[in-house]
Amino acid sequence: MELKEAIKLRRSARTFETKPVEREKVEEILRAAMQAPSAHNQQPWEFLVVEDANKIKELSQLHQYTAPLAGAPVAIVVLMNRKRLKVEAFWQQDISAAVQNMMLQAVDLGLGTLWMGVAPKEEYMTKVKEMCQLPEEVEAFGLFAVGYTEKNRFKDRFDESRIHWGSY
Amino acid sequence: MELKEAIKLRRSARTFETKPVEREKVEEILRAAMQAPSAHNQQPWEFLVVEDANKIKELSQLHQYTAPLAGAPVAIVVLMNRKRLKVEAFWQQDISAAVQNMMLQAVDLGLGTLWMGVAPKEEYMTKVKEMCQLPEEVEAFGLFAVGYTEKNRFKDRFDESRIHWGSY
Repeated sequence: MELKEAIKLRRSARTFETKPVEREKVEEILRAAMQAPSAHNQQPWEFLVVEDANKIKELSQLHQYTAPLAGAPVAIVVLMNRKRLKVEAFWQQDISAAVQNMMLQAVDLGLGTLWMGVAPKEEYMTKVKEMCQLPEEVEAFGLFAVGYTEKNRFKDRFDESRIHWGSY
Repeated sequence: MELKEAIKLRRSARTFETKPVEREKVEEILRAAMQAPSAHNQQPWEFLVVEDANKIKELSQLHQYTAPLAGAPVAIVVLMNRKRLKVEAFWQQDISAAVQNMMLQAVDLGLGTLWMGVAPKEEYMTKVKEMCQLPEEVEAFGLFAVGYTEKNRFKDRFDESRIHWGSY
């Protein structure tokens, strides 16, 4: 798929088909994630892939906006490992860029995704850490649902007033 | 260009040709930015496009890692407008996803880019705010260099050990 098409068709999915997602496709999504830039090339990301329906259901109860996860065949818990940090201030930005790559790669593979925030809210980070039995140095950044879904339509979000040429 | 190719070829550029960048291409990059997802669809982003060489040079002196900006024909100051915030905790993540779209779109247009961090470091945010005479409610998120550059080669960053299947 053309880059422009993927950027245009990426939309948040909140319902998914029950059809399982091939592991090769999950790996392809994570391969895209790892090509993202990061501050000092610290690559702070790790990924926990959850396919167990009970565990996915548990994760879906994290907060009110994570409910759609319950219907997804795959949940990726996007993680940060403190041992990898070189520039602490920018780790959320690094991983957000990686997640954008994941979403675009999923579109290319015919999959829908939903990115749900966890960090920097400590209450949520602690809960996910407990649910997933993460080691001390690993923190939950976000939850990411993947599954087959209806093909998205382009919704143009361009707003010329957001661009300031020369000066604000 | 294929999405996968753009993801693979995106690399940080630190030297640029003096050739100017067409405004249509800058707009195309910002169009891609605005298609990113955001928490509660808050779309907190705005963009200040700087083509004035003196202003670019001034911005390039922000901190030691912004020096490469001095050689770029275009600097985009990526901004957040507080009036647009619905979920304050996630604005940096929203804008990071937008910046990843910008970088990929630039690759597709034959352009190189460099993303330099500003927020959440208050010292840098304050300096950029002064340099660009931003209104009270607008904050600098990052600096973004755009210019023609050598075509990048793919550097595979895939690391299987970052993926945990089932449990950590």
